[in-house]
Amino acid sequence: MTERILNYMAAHPHEGPRLVVDLDVVRDNYRAFSKALPDTRVFYAVKANPEPKVLKLLADLGSCFDTASVVEIKLALDAGATPDRISFGNTIKKERDIAAARALGIDLYAVDCIEEVEKIARAAPGARVFARILCDGAGAEWPLSRKFGCVPEMAVDVLEHAHRLGLTAYGVSFHVGSQQRDPKMWNGALASAAMIFRTLAERGITLSMVNLGGGFPTRYLKKIPGVESYGTAIFNALRKHFGNRIPETIIEPGRGMVGNAGIIESEVVLISKKSNAADETRWVYLDIGKFGGLAETMDEAIRYPIKTPRDGAELAPCVLAGPTCDSADVMYEKDPYFLPVSLEIGDRVLIEATGAYTTTYSSCAFNGFPPLHTVCI
Amino acid sequence: MTERILNYMAAHPHEGPRLVVDLDVVRDNYRAFSKALPDTRVFYAVKANPEPKVLKLLADLGSCFDTASVVEIKLALDAGATPDRISFGNTIKKERDIAAARALGIDLYAVDCIEEVEKIARAAPGARVFARILCDGAGAEWPLSRKFGCVPEMAVDVLEHAHRLGLTAYGVSFHVGSQQRDPKMWNGALASAAMIFRTLAERGITLSMVNLGGGFPTRYLKKIPGVESYGTAIFNALRKHFGNRIPETIIEPGRGMVGNAGIIESEVVLISKKSNAADETRWVYLDIGKFGGLAETMDEAIRYPIKTPRDGAELAPCVLAGPTCDSADVMYEKDPYFLPVSLEIGDRVLIEATGAYTTTYSSCAFNGFPPLHTVCI
Repeated sequence: MTERILNYMAAHPHEGPRLVVDLDVVRDNYRAFSKALPDTRVFYAVKANPEPKVLKLLADLGSCFDTASVVEIKLALDAGATPDRISFGNTIKKERDIAAARALGIDLYAVDCIEEVEKIARAAPGARVFARILCDGAGAEWPLSRKFGCVPEMAVDVLEHAHRLGLTAYGVSFHVGSQQRDPKMWNGALASAAMIFRTLAERGITLSMVNLGGGFPTRYLKKIPGVESYGTAIFNALRKHFGNRIPETIIEPGRGMVGNAGIIESEVVLISKKSNAADETRWVYLDIGKFGGLAETMDEAIRYPIKTPRDGAELAPCVLAGPTCDSADVMYEKDPYFLPVSLEIGDRVLIEATGAYTTTYSSCAFNGFPPLHTVCI
Repeated sequence: MTERILNYMAAHPHEGPRLVVDLDVVRDNYRAFSKALPDTRVFYAVKANPEPKVLKLLADLGSCFDTASVVEIKLALDAGATPDRISFGNTIKKERDIAAARALGIDLYAVDCIEEVEKIARAAPGARVFARILCDGAGAEWPLSRKFGCVPEMAVDVLEHAHRLGLTAYGVSFHVGSQQRDPKMWNGALASAAMIFRTLAERGITLSMVNLGGGFPTRYLKKIPGVESYGTAIFNALRKHFGNRIPETIIEPGRGMVGNAGIIESEVVLISKKSNAADETRWVYLDIGKFGGLAETMDEAIRYPIKTPRDGAELAPCVLAGPTCDSADVMYEKDPYFLPVSLEIGDRVLIEATGAYTTTYSSCAFNGFPPLHTVCI
């Protein structure tokens, strides 16, 4: 929790929920990544928080950008990044979006199948591609599905196909799962990546790069290892699997770059019970919920720290819900949240570590509520 | 599926996903509700689809409006509804929003606890309030939590408290769960409502109204009973529990009013497999997913019918996913979706019965993708 954000909030009262992002924290995070992984280029995952001021700061610091769409590519360019510092990291792209990206100068693309390689060969001939492989996501708090990537054996074929079509088979990528709390999880994926490098080398194709993905956590309620632990674990795994021929590496932090830089200020709209029974649990309703920016509370996956003006008072469990007329807009119920018994309607609460994956998730107008207001300081 | 929508789409090609709503179907649905429940006033649930043209049509037809926020109240007023035709149906309201609603002339408010009654007594003195009671939601396809309502015994106290504070204790409301496929589910809630009417009458307080809520389904893949079955079942339950003293009744259809009036047109962005194994399932990626308007696929709750240009060809299961770089953006996987084996990248598919709970749910800018584009014809 930064003093700067608290001072800003006190000096600039605001109606409705808002996210305040402290750019100094983003700067510190960027420097910590650069220090922990000195030979690795940082591609900030724009989707985590595409605020122009965040992108401008990172562009000025020398960051590269991992983008999910043509709109995000344009945001990164507007922030001052040159096209050679931008990757189109979504494995699911319309062919005309690849052509639009190419027209903007983008030369680095993610793929996880032959079909995507063929689109790129047609729409961005000669471009560099990296193949994403599947990871099981063990140890990650945000669920990792099989949506992106293919098995390592298939990645070999995908990259060979790219080479045959005149593309540059550039490397391998993977993602160990978002909010990954175990630095050792990079080891298994790097073993697969090294196998792909070797197999293709035997076929005369030299790969250059391993994209280590994101997954770097932010501090919510549980303690997390420092970014230097990740740096050490990744470097050791690279040494183990690639020996003296360590390839070019990149990382794609999103949550780890901006998560702890933001705090959402919200208001307690209602506190009530469902019956007069003595053991009935309180319901606490905030003016932000699952559809207003806290989508990652889905299945109670991400558990945010919440500060209240009554902290220090006795705690009691409550069900925490959002303000919309949707029964699904309940954030913590299976595992109730402990808040002060003295909490009152109208109290302002601070939802910490909400700098990533909040603003752009918010519904455009559900129940008439506007998207989450954001300020960068 | 309406011919008008298909003709419109053919005549007006559009880049990216879009929802087309046929206002004729909305008109037919309004008339069907009026006919099935002739003595019941219709309060359209604005949150289901707040498109100004939908609201204008319904206002012209004589509909009333159930709103969730001050923004929705203003939308209903702009569409031509007078304040006496608008209820503030959200049980979770900021006191200053109640004051704003009151300033706009709104006189009918939902409550489910003493605390909310006290806010209304301060911000909208003398207003009419109805108490929402809990329902278990059995038979509903969209999950109904305990978020709204209180036990019937507590509703008695809540309404008595309102009466004591100078408000008009006006009635009782409940919701049997969205996409409720069993018309008999209104029976149990009406028994509770009648108990509340009797208990308060004994205390000298005469209630006037039962708000039968929404829950009326739209046709997705499974067949649903016609609206007249709901009318008959509700009328019979009213007779059974209220005898000859049937109160004023209102309904709040949302999905049942606009669900089948809309079709989303989407494009197949990618079809691929995760390995070369013979039994590997296809992944089909569309340009719309859980964050682009199809939020109700959460936990695979709502299963939309999908038409493709290859219908009639052999079917095979697939995992259906959206276009964003989020592993959670997978719509149907546990229960795979059957689509033609001949489906191709670039094919346009039609996602039917998507007129309700799609547009406003969509993320404002997740991954750089814009909210769902909507056209009313």
